[in-house]
Amino acid sequence: MNQYKIALLAGDGIGPEIMREAVKVLKAIEARHRDVQFELQPALFGAAAYFETGKAFPQETMQICDAADAILKGTIGLSHEESQKIPVDEQPERGALLPMRRRYNTFANFRPVYLPKELAFFSPLKEDIIGDGIDFMIIRELVGGLYFGEKVTGINEQGKRYVKETLEYNEDQIKAIVTVAFETAQSRKKVLHNIHKSNVLKSSVLWNEVVSEVAVDYPDVEVKHILVDAAATYLCLNPGQFDVMVMENMFGDILSDEGGGILGSLGLMPSACVGPEKSYYEPSHGSAPDIAGQNIANPYSMIGSVAMMLDMSFGMKKEAHNLWQAMRAVFAAGYCTPDLAKGKNVKLIKTDEFGDMVVAEL
Amino acid sequence: MNQYKIALLAGDGIGPEIMREAVKVLKAIEARHRDVQFELQPALFGAAAYFETGKAFPQETMQICDAADAILKGTIGLSHEESQKIPVDEQPERGALLPMRRRYNTFANFRPVYLPKELAFFSPLKEDIIGDGIDFMIIRELVGGLYFGEKVTGINEQGKRYVKETLEYNEDQIKAIVTVAFETAQSRKKVLHNIHKSNVLKSSVLWNEVVSEVAVDYPDVEVKHILVDAAATYLCLNPGQFDVMVMENMFGDILSDEGGGILGSLGLMPSACVGPEKSYYEPSHGSAPDIAGQNIANPYSMIGSVAMMLDMSFGMKKEAHNLWQAMRAVFAAGYCTPDLAKGKNVKLIKTDEFGDMVVAEL
Ligand SMILES: CC(C)[C@H](C(=O)O)[C@@H](O)C(=O)O
Ligand SMILES: CC(C)[C@H](C(=O)O)[C@@H](O)C(=O)O
Repeated sequence: MNQYKIALLAGDGIGPEIMREAVKVLKAIEARHRDVQFELQPALFGAAAYFETGKAFPQETMQICDAADAILKGTIGLSHEESQKIPVDEQPERGALLPMRRRYNTFANFRPVYLPKELAFFSPLKEDIIGDGIDFMIIRELVGGLYFGEKVTGINEQGKRYVKETLEYNEDQIKAIVTVAFETAQSRKKVLHNIHKSNVLKSSVLWNEVVSEVAVDYPDVEVKHILVDAAATYLCLNPGQFDVMVMENMFGDILSDEGGGILGSLGLMPSACVGPEKSYYEPSHGSAPDIAGQNIANPYSMIGSVAMMLDMSFGMKKEAHNLWQAMRAVFAAGYCTPDLAKGKNVKLIKTDEFGDMVVAEL
Repeated sequence: MNQYKIALLAGDGIGPEIMREAVKVLKAIEARHRDVQFELQPALFGAAAYFETGKAFPQETMQICDAADAILKGTIGLSHEESQKIPVDEQPERGALLPMRRRYNTFANFRPVYLPKELAFFSPLKEDIIGDGIDFMIIRELVGGLYFGEKVTGINEQGKRYVKETLEYNEDQIKAIVTVAFETAQSRKKVLHNIHKSNVLKSSVLWNEVVSEVAVDYPDVEVKHILVDAAATYLCLNPGQFDVMVMENMFGDILSDEGGGILGSLGLMPSACVGPEKSYYEPSHGSAPDIAGQNIANPYSMIGSVAMMLDMSFGMKKEAHNLWQAMRAVFAAGYCTPDLAKGKNVKLIKTDEFGDMVVAEL
């Protein structure tokens, strides 16, 4: 019997709704596998946790996560206005998400940007740009750079407010993520796009040095260097040229959301945040407070995160594959949630119906 | 008689070719206006300057620029491989472009992202996304942030290489650029998108504070706050929602190139870099070493930069308007350069033919 403890952090906004569908799917998989047991442990996280306990990442949640084999996270965050009601350092991103990333050192963030040809209509891009579909992997460094560097705020000699924050990397951090990227490239098309800004940032100069050093061990992988701004252009003009992309934290934040843009929705962006000992899985998108509670958010990114967890944390490759297939089958049958419909001739379904259909397909 | 001294910095790669067309256009305008004289002063700048003088921004060029009423700049930079042959601090971006921005304190970078409906076929976006065309203005802070913060490289206690660089802003810097943005929004649709990352960056927290303070003086302008990552998504999904966007330096670098992506080419991105006393004008794109010397680069962004110079530095609004119209007329007549053709049924023309046709239209 394989028993897996999974911490469930539903979070804020649409988090609880899409988490419900993830749980549904996990239960269905469990029911079909006598030798697998998922021990699901919900815990408070994010703004919801803050309002209930005064902490966005409460002690009890930490303990549950510490004891878990993997963590499944929903979405966190409030609207710009609501956020202001929470002290800056307890706002869910600074108070919960970043501390979690740091606590488990989840340095390797995998963000697949994937759209099969038959779903090209979801995308804002023209069909001739999409060609045979979109399929690349963004690998983002997740625990360094501007996100975790020192931040100083104060008043300068002229009596003016100022902020200084630090973008910091050392060669070990870069080597770790770049190695993951080379490994991934080797297992795919053997082309690695290295995203940098070495014409301005000294951190990119070091980054590129390390890329060249690690490259020696992967002679079969072709490295292509591309400036982050050029990458932002080419994601729109010719996404088909990319297979594996590696980049530092902030660049990864922006370009992966651009990736969601070219797919047609951030709702199509699951992700894995992998650390040396523990990993957590989450949609790449925010908590969409504007549509929360309406049962219309697409749970694809959440269920996709489950698939990534099955694959990467539990070695259940076949089940992961089946789950992706099941989601594609739902779309292929002409169903989709309103956010993706784009006025196309599809059968509109709700969040929970999507989950039910995926389970039925499984 | 209005005499204007213009420093011409053709630069590297396709710079000289597209600059030639800009000069052609300036001469044509001069010929049609007895009361206007352009004194054109070419000067070395970029990698070309480095190889000839050992400096990417030579003393003589500085003097010419100091004495000029406006500066027209082509493109700079070499291929990734060629760049490595120049010491890091003399590479054209660090050795010429950034020093120029600092010297003239060109803090306000205007990057129009504009595509009339009839040219929608240039864009990778579907027609229903483009709707009535794309038309918004990115206003990017250009002399602060990571670009100009302190950078420290060294070896840490574990003997590992590291880099620290600083993202720094004070309230005056923010106030200056935000004020420009409110003014621009007021003269357009009165909606300002404020791009930030306040859920992670403390500099964005200060940025947003200043936005709220300046907003008090522009009660007729509606401010919409949007995270930089979300903005990257929505530039693809719904660019029509934007009219004026304001953001810090690095975000502006990435999102404006994404803007070029949704237009169909960075070749459609002219820009103005405005300082308190002097401004310079440049295409937003790089020097495209791969197509340099082939007479196929589209000079639109360069000629568009001339139009912005006429308008913003010389107050020649009518001439600027005519120039835009002339370029649109060339496209409307079915002509275009190969980079924009996208296999469409158009009459392919060369760089210099585009310039000739614009002059003929004028
Ligand atoms: C919520 C926010 C802190 C986070 C980030 O910037 O990393 C999110 O945008 C993401 O991409 O996971
Ligand atoms: C060449 C480079 C230094 C520059 C920048 O990053 O500002 C360019 O990309 C731009 O956008 O003007």
